[in-house]
Amino acid sequence: MIATHQINHQRLWKTLMELGEIGSNPNRPEEGVTRLSLSLEDLKARQYTMDVMREAGLEVRVDSVGNVIGKLVGTDPLAPVVITGSHVDTVIQGGKFDGALGVLGAIEAVRSIIESGLKLTHSIEVISFTDEEGTRFGTGYIGSKAMVGCLEEDTFELKDENGITYAEAFKQAHLDPANYKLAQRSEEEVKAYIEMHIEQGRVLEDHQLSVGVVTDIQGPIWMEVQFQGHPDHAGATPMNMRRDAGLAMAELMIEVEKTAKKHGGVGTVGKVHIEPGGVNIIPGKSTLSIDLRHVNIELRANMVKELHQSISGICEKRNLTVNVELKKEVDPTSCSKEIARLIEESCAELQVPTMKLQCGAGHDSLIMTKLTKMGMIFVRSIDGLSHNPKEWTEKEDCMIGTQVLLNTLVKLAK
Amino acid sequence: MIATHQINHQRLWKTLMELGEIGSNPNRPEEGVTRLSLSLEDLKARQYTMDVMREAGLEVRVDSVGNVIGKLVGTDPLAPVVITGSHVDTVIQGGKFDGALGVLGAIEAVRSIIESGLKLTHSIEVISFTDEEGTRFGTGYIGSKAMVGCLEEDTFELKDENGITYAEAFKQAHLDPANYKLAQRSEEEVKAYIEMHIEQGRVLEDHQLSVGVVTDIQGPIWMEVQFQGHPDHAGATPMNMRRDAGLAMAELMIEVEKTAKKHGGVGTVGKVHIEPGGVNIIPGKSTLSIDLRHVNIELRANMVKELHQSISGICEKRNLTVNVELKKEVDPTSCSKEIARLIEESCAELQVPTMKLQCGAGHDSLIMTKLTKMGMIFVRSIDGLSHNPKEWTEKEDCMIGTQVLLNTLVKLAK
Repeated sequence: MIATHQINHQRLWKTLMELGEIGSNPNRPEEGVTRLSLSLEDLKARQYTMDVMREAGLEVRVDSVGNVIGKLVGTDPLAPVVITGSHVDTVIQGGKFDGALGVLGAIEAVRSIIESGLKLTHSIEVISFTDEEGTRFGTGYIGSKAMVGCLEEDTFELKDENGITYAEAFKQAHLDPANYKLAQRSEEEVKAYIEMHIEQGRVLEDHQLSVGVVTDIQGPIWMEVQFQGHPDHAGATPMNMRRDAGLAMAELMIEVEKTAKKHGGVGTVGKVHIEPGGVNIIPGKSTLSIDLRHVNIELRANMVKELHQSISGICEKRNLTVNVELKKEVDPTSCSKEIARLIEESCAELQVPTMKLQCGAGHDSLIMTKLTKMGMIFVRSIDGLSHNPKEWTEKEDCMIGTQVLLNTLVKLAK
Repeated sequence: MIATHQINHQRLWKTLMELGEIGSNPNRPEEGVTRLSLSLEDLKARQYTMDVMREAGLEVRVDSVGNVIGKLVGTDPLAPVVITGSHVDTVIQGGKFDGALGVLGAIEAVRSIIESGLKLTHSIEVISFTDEEGTRFGTGYIGSKAMVGCLEEDTFELKDENGITYAEAFKQAHLDPANYKLAQRSEEEVKAYIEMHIEQGRVLEDHQLSVGVVTDIQGPIWMEVQFQGHPDHAGATPMNMRRDAGLAMAELMIEVEKTAKKHGGVGTVGKVHIEPGGVNIIPGKSTLSIDLRHVNIELRANMVKELHQSISGICEKRNLTVNVELKKEVDPTSCSKEIARLIEESCAELQVPTMKLQCGAGHDSLIMTKLTKMGMIFVRSIDGLSHNPKEWTEKEDCMIGTQVLLNTLVKLAK
């Protein structure tokens, strides 16, 4: 790798490790990192991010939905800004790199630009978006949605598992939910969005490459299904007299797998709950989450349609009622060919071999595409692990990815 | 119904309704009654039971495992005692009659005997057994097991969902777990055990009968199965690279239903848990309870064997490991023909039509059969509902059952 404006990879690694301490239990490292959106741990991580931004010499502000924004002002302050970033919230028992690398790598890249004395025409904003993961309230991309103007007001009525509404969580973080529209940006003021992220899959590892250039992003659909049957005594209720909501859930879980395999997408049930929850009580109620993804929107629609048919069949067979709620629906999208070309050019300059690949996970970049042209740099994940305490990306790969980001930012903002 | 020594059905009903208040939320009657073993609510219910026993004129004591015992001393205090009773703990969101009717009905029957001035040779003990349901710690019949001498010491290591051990729960209830063997009774000191209980099924209702005479009791087997796979990102992990412990659980749930139907028994999964539990994380771990019952012990063994085969097949197919724990195993049993005949005679005297029937649920009577001859009186359940807030037994049926119990107790203790 031959860099003109070289990043400081030790400084980058130090911030990655320090941020990774927040939300992890030093006595239980095997439980990974948990920083649910706007939790105490997330708020600490955001504070840490702001500190690193200030140290880097960025102008720091927090917008009305809690997006943390660090700005390097360009020589033409009125020119549209180049945005880069990711998120610092995590899933339950996640890792140190998902989101964090995109935020801290962007700060390091911009810091190295400042230190090199290079002057860029366009301002660069590093953003840590609010609630990308959606784990806590069941719907994500809150910060980026607000920024592009597609956040829906009823999001604030959603409740977490402790019954706290999104509006209450906002207030606890000193944010006013009534002001969420103030976070919206116009197309005119933004030139491009570029996000560096760990791959969360095994493609780069299979190809023995540190970084990849993303071409398309799968869009996720999240549904919540609730079956209502009848809680009865497990011993005294013959099999043919039951209205077992737990078995309906089990059947639907199998159907999710079937339809995903059939259409070449992915489908996951990651959250289940049955009530009342006694060993000797037939479940009267069950609730499950469904996450469906596909790069092809029609095939994804077929998956949804087939599941609706399965749900009807299950309810009829088992004499149950059901409620199906759509919790999230993000269309699959394509990256900007222009930015992809700039990333490839940067790789070539740095003599870093690379490849084009698809993205299986959702990201804020998916949302930002509604506002501006968008590109993504993927960095190799060991064993493809993510949303997992064992998620890992080697120090060298973090360095290479961040250097590619720096070069691309210079091209975009010059 | 023509009774010589008549019970006071209004007094009985009053105690049933008062006990039913304990562990229920007056603002949420639809959530029923929750009195998990040795919880604050259960302890309150036991205190109430002791108060009613004392009012009835019984000598009250609590044995070393918390069984509440109210004694009417007979004219020959050395003669073996007749025991009757049930339990006052409940499942989560249970009803007012399961267990409660057997305890409060027995107290009312003995109180009416005392008030009538009738002197009986044998002492009668009314017992409210500790933890029949087993909901809190995953294994039940604690009080009756200790009484017959088959409680295992490692029971005290079991933990509830808050991580409290059974030993700790004992201490919180001012019981010393080290003394559990002191609760054991000898065959010589007990003449018979008779339990009145709601049917928890629809057989008596179908036959339009208030009471039935039980001939056999199904024995339950409880297992806990834990699958271990790998938590991965829901978007970036292709279907064929997954080790999804949630889908293994779903498949096993369907197998439980299949094997129960095939062998004419019942099988239930009432409790499930998956980890880490995020919408977009493939479950790395799943835990489920299995409750299997049959009147025929060989057919029940076949059900267990088939499930073990299914579990192996699922683990192989999905590349998972598994741990299967047997939490409870109680053999099916038959009631004493002699006591059944006495119950039938009592019904005939009272001109109460009746029938013989099997029992689908487990009861302390199942355990007490190891110590003494045992009989059961079943009382009609509306719609067969039990372990359910809507569990109900009509006032008149409670009265008739209790009167049959009284007459049978007189025959056993005279």
